[in-house]
Amino acid sequence: MSVPPTTFSFGMIGLGTMGRNLLLNLADHDFAVAGYDKDAAKISLLAEEGAGKPVQGFTSLPEFIGSLSTPRAIMMLVPAGKVVDSVVEELQPLLAPGDILIDGGNSHFTDTNRRAAALAAAGLHFFGMGISGGEEGARFGPSMMPGGDRQAYQVVQPMFEAIAARVDGEPCVTYIGPGAAGHFVKMVHNGIEYGLMQLIAETYEIMQRGLGLDNAAIGQVFARWNSGRLQSFLLDITKDIFTFQAPGTDHLLLDDIKDEARSKGTGKWTSQVAQDLEMAIPTIDTAVALRDLSKYKALREQLAQLYSPAPAQFTGNSDAFLASLEQAFYFSMALTYAQGMHLLSKASRDFGYDLQLANIAKIWRGGCIIRSEFLTHIFNAYQHNSTLAHLLLDEQVRALVSAAVPGARAVVSAAVAAGVAVPAYAASLSYFDTIRSARMPSNLIQAQRDYFGAHTYELIGKEGVFHSQWTPAHEDAANKQDTVVEPGKQGEQPVIPNK
Amino acid sequence: MSVPPTTFSFGMIGLGTMGRNLLLNLADHDFAVAGYDKDAAKISLLAEEGAGKPVQGFTSLPEFIGSLSTPRAIMMLVPAGKVVDSVVEELQPLLAPGDILIDGGNSHFTDTNRRAAALAAAGLHFFGMGISGGEEGARFGPSMMPGGDRQAYQVVQPMFEAIAARVDGEPCVTYIGPGAAGHFVKMVHNGIEYGLMQLIAETYEIMQRGLGLDNAAIGQVFARWNSGRLQSFLLDITKDIFTFQAPGTDHLLLDDIKDEARSKGTGKWTSQVAQDLEMAIPTIDTAVALRDLSKYKALREQLAQLYSPAPAQFTGNSDAFLASLEQAFYFSMALTYAQGMHLLSKASRDFGYDLQLANIAKIWRGGCIIRSEFLTHIFNAYQHNSTLAHLLLDEQVRALVSAAVPGARAVVSAAVAAGVAVPAYAASLSYFDTIRSARMPSNLIQAQRDYFGAHTYELIGKEGVFHSQWTPAHEDAANKQDTVVEPGKQGEQPVIPNK
Repeated sequence: MSVPPTTFSFGMIGLGTMGRNLLLNLADHDFAVAGYDKDAAKISLLAEEGAGKPVQGFTSLPEFIGSLSTPRAIMMLVPAGKVVDSVVEELQPLLAPGDILIDGGNSHFTDTNRRAAALAAAGLHFFGMGISGGEEGARFGPSMMPGGDRQAYQVVQPMFEAIAARVDGEPCVTYIGPGAAGHFVKMVHNGIEYGLMQLIAETYEIMQRGLGLDNAAIGQVFARWNSGRLQSFLLDITKDIFTFQAPGTDHLLLDDIKDEARSKGTGKWTSQVAQDLEMAIPTIDTAVALRDLSKYKALREQLAQLYSPAPAQFTGNSDAFLASLEQAFYFSMALTYAQGMHLLSKASRDFGYDLQLANIAKIWRGGCIIRSEFLTHIFNAYQHNSTLAHLLLDEQVRALVSAAVPGARAVVSAAVAAGVAVPAYAASLSYFDTIRSARMPSNLIQAQRDYFGAHTYELIGKEGVFHSQWTPAHEDAANKQDTVVEPGKQGEQPVIPNK
Repeated sequence: MSVPPTTFSFGMIGLGTMGRNLLLNLADHDFAVAGYDKDAAKISLLAEEGAGKPVQGFTSLPEFIGSLSTPRAIMMLVPAGKVVDSVVEELQPLLAPGDILIDGGNSHFTDTNRRAAALAAAGLHFFGMGISGGEEGARFGPSMMPGGDRQAYQVVQPMFEAIAARVDGEPCVTYIGPGAAGHFVKMVHNGIEYGLMQLIAETYEIMQRGLGLDNAAIGQVFARWNSGRLQSFLLDITKDIFTFQAPGTDHLLLDDIKDEARSKGTGKWTSQVAQDLEMAIPTIDTAVALRDLSKYKALREQLAQLYSPAPAQFTGNSDAFLASLEQAFYFSMALTYAQGMHLLSKASRDFGYDLQLANIAKIWRGGCIIRSEFLTHIFNAYQHNSTLAHLLLDEQVRALVSAAVPGARAVVSAAVAAGVAVPAYAASLSYFDTIRSARMPSNLIQAQRDYFGAHTYELIGKEGVFHSQWTPAHEDAANKQDTVVEPGKQGEQPVIPNK
């Protein structure tokens, strides 16, 4: 069919699973939309699935652009990286000042910053928008995290609010912040996702290896948890996985799947950025490391032969232990979210994002992979105090987390004793025990650094940095490994009056 | 004094602590050496400390360059980052093809790659050289890790071998590999250093909070350990720190030092690069995270008020527990080195460094911060099998580590139960329990990823990647959180014949 120009109010570049389904979602909500893809087969599929809806596909980029009303609102859903740059390059000459270009993929936020700056010079509004929910979310209601120019956001806001997932009648989309704020928040969302998935995997390990439960029993535990305070999308799909049989067999497909976990890198980015921001998110770091370790299958098989005995089963009352395990999961899940929110609050300050953490928790309650009952507590905490320094400071969260600590200790302690690997559980508990330490042993690290590298140290209640001659100078190389403290030379010397 | 041109066989740019002391070390070994610094005070200090030795300082760069014999061998010891680039820029016009320029600082290895490539175009040999040992090492014998052109290395080899620390008569320096191999290996050295320091800090925490020992008793334990199989530079200085009193008081300076640990970033780089190489080094990651967490002093004090009870003391026989603690430290130390060596073996393959891990362990046995008795076992392991895939595969290491596992379990289990934070101990044990798992629970992660993102999975004993329709398509958005498995639609479909 031939269409008059400026017919469509929204355009999508890249009609893969996500792009096509988002476009159909928009069409369902009576927005007239256009899609562009070089692949004619994808245009056909769009036409087929969009029959009777106000949606049309194009294989010509100029025709596609010409079909859009102005200011144009165009989303790209193409693979992150160089493809985004090449699409932008091809597209830019066809756009006009005031047009809005949205990158809906999982681009690294530093790339988004770079692209936004380059396009701003041409009067174009570049948005980085995180979209979570997978294929199903895209089709029926995702959670969306758009970042960019606040004024320009108003053009697309009605469309995004119409197609987003809804919780209590409210759409799971909100303006996140300027620049790459949207992609940053989506990245941290994915980091939390890595942490929660690792915790669920370890829970499976504990029940299977530690408690000796069979798949049916394990699936029942996940199903029970998912109907209570632990309700979450990830537990929901996990319970399904524990009923899904391999075709033509009487066992679960799960049992046939390789124990080598792949990843697309967003968890890694979260860890790396957190380190750049000097922010501890050990549960997420651990989840990233464990995906990497899973790939060393041959090495693990060799080492399993060498390092016996194999993990032991726990003894004692399995029901009581399962009650502890529920607490441990609740505790560790809360700590994982807490680490992610802490990272967001730091990025908000350092990058000037002015993130509204309550709103972020709110839009994560529906549509996205990390949606869960617990997000309501997070929402309440930041709604109550928008400048809360850490989630654990909230009174309601404190009560919930404190009550779950005994279970977390019981589970980690038992698993460690039995040799069942629980790295993310252990990391969550260590994080908790550290962050509730008014005094850490890090003074020793400062003393060591000053001893061997003259890196100086700071003193309690005294301004400035100091250096001590911890050991006398050596006469020769012979005794350099046997240092002796010489009382006459000890003492502190101020080095720099103040930082 | 006026000197004839081409008098000196080695030149140093940057006469701070490290540069000056390395130069004096060379002069001690009868090499005629020159130093350059813009700061006349540093030239004076060099003259003073170098009186009677073949060493001379310059404040004029051309005069300094003119004083060197050719091909020139020049080391920079200036702050990493932009300063290195600006020194290189100033220097390059004064150099001639065949000259050797050595960056002895802690530059990021990617910067070293970039600089080496740029200077190679001008016929200059650029070396990245890691130097460990601090001021004392520089003066009396450091451990040195030079990377660059193998042929060019022969020019400086006699000088470096003369001034390096020695163990069993052998110098703690060896050609590491091409390109940035030297700086890469030094970075990993520092990552291991972070891990070991964090383990010592946690040991202090266990003894202080968990066992209720006073500083004198804690110092005695460190001293005893340092005279046995745990002997190491870091324990050596730690025992000293536990005898070093604050001036004019009757308590340790350690008690007055703030528990906020600083860092210069090399540990962070190690973690970030490991993640880029998809390599798990969780003990080192944890050490980096804990330095970051230590800086949140005010938050920790607030949370300490909210989350009681405070950590409990361990009960039972303190001597028996200390024996377990010695095992736990031995175990975790071994695992920290093992992670670092594993990372080196991966980098060696990925970057074509062709690292000789036995030689690296050998030169780490003296002069450097991570020198220890245990490095002899590491040296033996890689000497015995230069392509050992993981340190834990070595038979001698296996025997040592296996014997220490019960202590590690006892300590982590007790600390976790009591609420004493032992993040690096726990991470080391989790790493061990994971890497000796022939089967990890990561199959569940693969199933989840395919469920929500159609990311596909792999099957045991079957080529290709697969995707399943884990849940039926939804009619509308209303039921999207309550998925039901529909038996008729289950099954796997090959997606891509092979990776």
